[in-house]
Amino acid sequence: MSTRSKPETQYLELRSRLQEIRDLEAAASVLQWDRATYMPTGGAIARGRQIAMLRQIAHEKLTDPALHDLLEDLKDYERLLPYNSIEASLLRVARRDSQRAVRIPSDFVVKLSQHQTESYMAWAKAKPEGDFERVRPFLEKTLELSQQWASFFPESECIADPLIAREDEGVTTRMLKQLFGELRSKLVPIVDALAERPQLDNSLLSQEFEEEMQLGFCHKTLERIGYDFERGRLDRTPHPFTARFSIDDVRLTTRIDTHDLSESVFSSLHEMGHALYEQGIDPALEATPLAAGASGGMHESQARLWENFVGRSRAFWECFFPWLQGTFLRQLGQVSVNEFYAAVNKVIRSPIRTSADEVTYNLHVIIRFDLELEMLEGRLAVKDLPDAWNERYRQDLGVVPPNPQSGVLQDVHWYMGTIGGQFQSYTLGNLIAAQLFETALKIHPEIPVDIERGNFETLHRWLKRNVYRHGRKFTADELVLKVSGKPLYVDPFVRYIRNKFGHLYEMDWI
Amino acid sequence: MSTRSKPETQYLELRSRLQEIRDLEAAASVLQWDRATYMPTGGAIARGRQIAMLRQIAHEKLTDPALHDLLEDLKDYERLLPYNSIEASLLRVARRDSQRAVRIPSDFVVKLSQHQTESYMAWAKAKPEGDFERVRPFLEKTLELSQQWASFFPESECIADPLIAREDEGVTTRMLKQLFGELRSKLVPIVDALAERPQLDNSLLSQEFEEEMQLGFCHKTLERIGYDFERGRLDRTPHPFTARFSIDDVRLTTRIDTHDLSESVFSSLHEMGHALYEQGIDPALEATPLAAGASGGMHESQARLWENFVGRSRAFWECFFPWLQGTFLRQLGQVSVNEFYAAVNKVIRSPIRTSADEVTYNLHVIIRFDLELEMLEGRLAVKDLPDAWNERYRQDLGVVPPNPQSGVLQDVHWYMGTIGGQFQSYTLGNLIAAQLFETALKIHPEIPVDIERGNFETLHRWLKRNVYRHGRKFTADELVLKVSGKPLYVDPFVRYIRNKFGHLYEMDWI
Repeated sequence: MSTRSKPETQYLELRSRLQEIRDLEAAASVLQWDRATYMPTGGAIARGRQIAMLRQIAHEKLTDPALHDLLEDLKDYERLLPYNSIEASLLRVARRDSQRAVRIPSDFVVKLSQHQTESYMAWAKAKPEGDFERVRPFLEKTLELSQQWASFFPESECIADPLIAREDEGVTTRMLKQLFGELRSKLVPIVDALAERPQLDNSLLSQEFEEEMQLGFCHKTLERIGYDFERGRLDRTPHPFTARFSIDDVRLTTRIDTHDLSESVFSSLHEMGHALYEQGIDPALEATPLAAGASGGMHESQARLWENFVGRSRAFWECFFPWLQGTFLRQLGQVSVNEFYAAVNKVIRSPIRTSADEVTYNLHVIIRFDLELEMLEGRLAVKDLPDAWNERYRQDLGVVPPNPQSGVLQDVHWYMGTIGGQFQSYTLGNLIAAQLFETALKIHPEIPVDIERGNFETLHRWLKRNVYRHGRKFTADELVLKVSGKPLYVDPFVRYIRNKFGHLYEMDWI
Repeated sequence: MSTRSKPETQYLELRSRLQEIRDLEAAASVLQWDRATYMPTGGAIARGRQIAMLRQIAHEKLTDPALHDLLEDLKDYERLLPYNSIEASLLRVARRDSQRAVRIPSDFVVKLSQHQTESYMAWAKAKPEGDFERVRPFLEKTLELSQQWASFFPESECIADPLIAREDEGVTTRMLKQLFGELRSKLVPIVDALAERPQLDNSLLSQEFEEEMQLGFCHKTLERIGYDFERGRLDRTPHPFTARFSIDDVRLTTRIDTHDLSESVFSSLHEMGHALYEQGIDPALEATPLAAGASGGMHESQARLWENFVGRSRAFWECFFPWLQGTFLRQLGQVSVNEFYAAVNKVIRSPIRTSADEVTYNLHVIIRFDLELEMLEGRLAVKDLPDAWNERYRQDLGVVPPNPQSGVLQDVHWYMGTIGGQFQSYTLGNLIAAQLFETALKIHPEIPVDIERGNFETLHRWLKRNVYRHGRKFTADELVLKVSGKPLYVDPFVRYIRNKFGHLYEMDWI
């Protein structure tokens, strides 16, 4: 009797330890959310210390040898369980997290975290002044630390692999080079061809739109689509993000620009995609490491799916434009839904990633991915980065950033994180979104008509059933294969772009 | 060299451990503040678990034998330090906290915390229905657990002593019986005498006052007095409170009743008193156990001092009434400052503690203190509490609560905390406030004139220098003696009441 009950008891002990880690991370997220939304300026110093402390305790608990022993002891138990059971999945994912965490020495975690804070502060000062030299020494140190981080995984084929695997389990540099190379070779000619066509007009988005009314529109739109405000909130921050404190408390923030309507609308829809994913996870997974998105790329796919595949579709605006027009009658009273649809889909060869259209967006990402790989592999020195950046923009997008703010200093990622392992998720997200959305349309061809009628349930329910509810039970690779029947490939995305923008720009390839 | 540096190294190690405990408690407070202000309803279950987990980790760290050993090893070092140095005070206070914490078994902490959550939920349902029977079993269990809590300190003279010492170090039941007995014997005849006089009119407070305008008035008033909004916030909650996450992030909340202006104004001033105390602590004490108020009573004294001794004074309204009148011209345009001053000081024999005037307030507290002592000592059964409560109200205040909501169910304290150790701080606070304020007026007789002119600096600076900056370096007893030259006694409070209300009610004792 006692031998039979042993693994069950050990499993409960493990679950309780994992819950504690999970809740420590959630507590740190609450502190971060508060810092971004309501914290008075005076609170900054203590808050930084408190968040770091919670993360450190969580890391200590994840690398506790007792946790490792439990995972070892439960190996036989795990073999008897079905692969997709909660128990087997929990053991599999916890083992993966624990094995990765123990590789990183605790003092390195602290050192990296301190450096990241300093580097971020230097960047925040250097960016407005366009002063790359100011942050260069910090970025050089970041590169060194990123290489060191990678060196804790000496078995990797490529130096970037372990950095990528942190966000996108199972994805390697070799795979990305192939996928991104193919995508780039197909996108560059499309961008060039579109640039030859008469351009779309998006000037109607740049009128003055009252802040509170924008927020009200976003709030009602999210509610109507199916974001649950009983289990979430919408607040304003300079940099939009989504925060999850439990499956039943998933909050998003948006940025409002009174002179650009697209900012609030599309950042809300983007973050809502992240939030719908988290709100849709099976409640049985609550407070376990399974209660999260399958990967960075899979998470981003849902943000991009709702922002672009839905939010920039004609069907979506057939439904919402009359309402938006009623809200901003003075500004949009004379605008047709066709004009509005064209405005939110204008393709521009701009130096800025975050406001890029669907066609050029991935080119921005691929530039960063290639450059960070060159730096990690020692082929590009940090001091030569600004020139290399500008040269790649000239080649791929036919535009040279007018200053470092719009060039090498534009994204925070390298200045507050590691070099490597962050940007790939964006383009993986676009590819996954296209492949899943194409599958959804095959099974439910009525989705666009439903959306036009304000019914988002068909799509939302399909995504919940096939993706959201599983949380981290399956990897992104497993999910993509399971749902679409194929491994990830670029064709659905390229088909989607050629079809949508072919119509918008009246291309002869249609 | 190594032997000389050893205690310094140990001290730093201790400080770092204490900082971690402090920051864990601060993190739990952020989670509580968020729960009370912005959390969506869905977040409740996970949030309760997360707060409990943070508190448990803090308790584990406080009772860690390694911390105890450090404190033991540092005893010789402590003897060489001046009593009022930060180092000696830190060691003294940490030892006190640790010695108390180790008495309570970890599983008892968890058991009590779980029971308190259940009991609170039962009370929240029972109160609107006036259903005491529903919470009686919970309250009986609370009594049992409170007695058990006390039993971990068998050396105490009285069962309530260790419960009281949690909030008010050095205060005993014997001392309180003497102080409260004397106070009651002096207050009851005053209340009786005031009841014989023509009554003041406070009906002007019960008009309709717009919510946003009330909040705006409170915000500007607090700012003008000296509450630092760069290091704090004012938000709305059903039950006002103050939360400290660091010396530089001390937030307060207020309750707004559109049909009672006094609610928002005086709850804001009350919480501001708590917040000024925390904001005024010496920054050198940040992130140590010294960065807090000296005791529950001392903290409450500052809330009551700013709410009543300042906020219900004529000088205060000479300064602020014209402004309030400008804000609510329709409601207060015909009111004189004298009428307003009288309205906010009307003495009423009501069954409700929180809205009680300065004269009757302590009688409410003393009733609760006496009853909880009778329960703890086994002289009063929980089932007989409602009758005992009503009988004491009849005796002391000449009023019988019309229903359990306004009687035994009105305060949350017994239903979410322990029985014993909570109510005494309120009356200690009033007595301390009177004794400190009398001293301040002796040294700075210009304070009322300064306040009339909108200058709060004289009083605020005096309080910061004599009380706030010390944090927990001294006990409340030590501070009262140091500042006023006398131990705590009831005379300053009774003098203040007789003088102020003697004038207001034109008593012949003036």
